[in-house]
Amino acid sequence: MPQTSDIDYIRAAIALAREGMERGDGGPFGCVIVKNGVIVGRGNNRVTSSNDPTAHAEVVAIREACKQLGSFQLDGCVLFTSCEPCPMCLGAIYWARPDRVVFAGTRGDAADAGFDDQLIYDELPLPYAERRIHTDHVLREEAQAVFEAWKAKEDKIRY
Amino acid sequence: MPQTSDIDYIRAAIALAREGMERGDGGPFGCVIVKNGVIVGRGNNRVTSSNDPTAHAEVVAIREACKQLGSFQLDGCVLFTSCEPCPMCLGAIYWARPDRVVFAGTRGDAADAGFDDQLIYDELPLPYAERRIHTDHVLREEAQAVFEAWKAKEDKIRY
Repeated sequence: MPQTSDIDYIRAAIALAREGMERGDGGPFGCVIVKNGVIVGRGNNRVTSSNDPTAHAEVVAIREACKQLGSFQLDGCVLFTSCEPCPMCLGAIYWARPDRVVFAGTRGDAADAGFDDQLIYDELPLPYAERRIHTDHVLREEAQAVFEAWKAKEDKIRY
Repeated sequence: MPQTSDIDYIRAAIALAREGMERGDGGPFGCVIVKNGVIVGRGNNRVTSSNDPTAHAEVVAIREACKQLGSFQLDGCVLFTSCEPCPMCLGAIYWARPDRVVFAGTRGDAADAGFDDQLIYDELPLPYAERRIHTDHVLREEAQAVFEAWKAKEDKIRY
């Protein structure tokens, strides 16, 4: 269930979206990450201004929150994003593992504004041979050997 | 079709995977990005050492290649990765738009080594209400207002 304070945090994310767009940082997307009532990460889209196609609001905020918390996991955090995450950002969210996500705009709203997340949502489930970006597969055995070394590594840190 | 030089580049990606693992940077994953026969970006997984859950090999390499090329797009590039990309990285690849992808290990090989990309592949197509990370949706209209401002913005840079 949404909580009363959700409204304040999602408004903060939407404000970051608008301010970043007005500064010319990139697209109109913003994100804040909250832990125990404190904002620990903020992000807005910076793709075009930083020449970084991964600099979506959620990725920027996740990186900042993890740096702030000194952890590669967002246990106990809630991620507020001005728009439903694209597949890249949703993947990042799953790896970061916050407790909850709250969004405002939908992927349909984003598409209407020219951001085609849906194409990527459609491509991901396809076998690689059917995707639009041509993909080849070689040397599987040499890669498997590295995985075997990982499995045998005693001091590894799982994530 | 795979090309002869693909073997050299994928071996370079696999070597980065092994070296990064041995240094303790993170998981056993490596990536190189090539344009016109020149490596323009390199990456290996640095999740645990940099406290950055987005620091997968492909994301690191894409960020480096884009910085090197001064562009948020990877036109004319081929991305070589030691393992089939996870959904986050595949999303990043779609946003960066290289011409081609070559991978070695499969997502099954990664799962066998303890990396559960498949969970994320399974979650992404679900309606948000059915996902394991609880998700709420509020204030859509306020986010839509920012998208309307984006649509009206005359000096925007599309990506």
